[in-house]
Amino acid sequence: MREQIVEAAFEQFHRHGYNACGVKLITDSAKVPKGSFYNHFESKEALALVVMDRYGETRHLDKLATPKTAPLARLRHHFEALAQDIVDFGYERGCVFGNFSTEAADHIPAIRAGVRTAFDLWATAISAVIREAQDDGIVTTTQSPDALARFLLNSWEGAIVGERATKDGSSFAAFFTVAFEVVLR
Amino acid sequence: MREQIVEAAFEQFHRHGYNACGVKLITDSAKVPKGSFYNHFESKEALALVVMDRYGETRHLDKLATPKTAPLARLRHHFEALAQDIVDFGYERGCVFGNFSTEAADHIPAIRAGVRTAFDLWATAISAVIREAQDDGIVTTTQSPDALARFLLNSWEGAIVGERATKDGSSFAAFFTVAFEVVLR
Repeated sequence: MREQIVEAAFEQFHRHGYNACGVKLITDSAKVPKGSFYNHFESKEALALVVMDRYGETRHLDKLATPKTAPLARLRHHFEALAQDIVDFGYERGCVFGNFSTEAADHIPAIRAGVRTAFDLWATAISAVIREAQDDGIVTTTQSPDALARFLLNSWEGAIVGERATKDGSSFAAFFTVAFEVVLR
Repeated sequence: MREQIVEAAFEQFHRHGYNACGVKLITDSAKVPKGSFYNHFESKEALALVVMDRYGETRHLDKLATPKTAPLARLRHHFEALAQDIVDFGYERGCVFGNFSTEAADHIPAIRAGVRTAFDLWATAISAVIREAQDDGIVTTTQSPDALARFLLNSWEGAIVGERATKDGSSFAAFFTVAFEVVLR
């Protein structure tokens, strides 16, 4: 039953965001009694942290570590996979981390800490790839890999914000062009 | 009374976002009877569009058109003013456009259209400045000013998403460094 709740919450948090997704929506979606929720989770907040961990496992970080692929090709594959996920949902769901940061980080410290950790882990993985590309002489070393990684991660999150308004791929196109042709040079 | 409602809504939408801010919260905050709301606005959605227009007037677009200032200095002043606003609110409120795009664009077409228009107007203003900088030979012409403008606008929105998780200025710092030292070269 716990697994049913987590799976339903993953779907509903992603679809509706944190604030608009209540415990009843989650238990209805999981087809379990609302009362059973608190046998498994202390709070909606505690469940949201479990969902964030699970969401993190789907963020295609494996593509940043593909053997025998050049660093920037790996980075491109990573963002292409993320873009495809967004497109597959008709640009309607966004990123759970970005959604939670925007909606809930202000008033729920545990959510803010969870988003912060998720972004830090992600930025560290991107930074390692950029450092490799710098060592290969492909990316300028005038900027630290950490600054470039944080900038790109945020630019990606912002491209999603843009796409949710336009749903036409224009923000993703600008991201790929400027990130790979200008920033990572 | 209409003006009281708009001012209260501006504050409450900015503070709580779209979904968590109901009509009663707005009328309570405006110190007007809840029943009076619908004498002035057809819906919460209609009021949100008025608030978006008003918010747009505060987005420091005037700094993009300061006479006798170099294009990139104007662009920097613009983003610095936006950053200061966010810092002044303790990184807790974000951008109304970005918040609405993330929270409400999916299920409310009028909000999505409003955000899209706001981002388009903003991108156009940034693009004009970048074009000037390109004409002056300061920014590379390998990318169109529109693509660079859209990329920077989204990167800014994403930097806000990042700051709401960390509240330490690190995402803004990465934005200013990479935007002005790498992207706009």
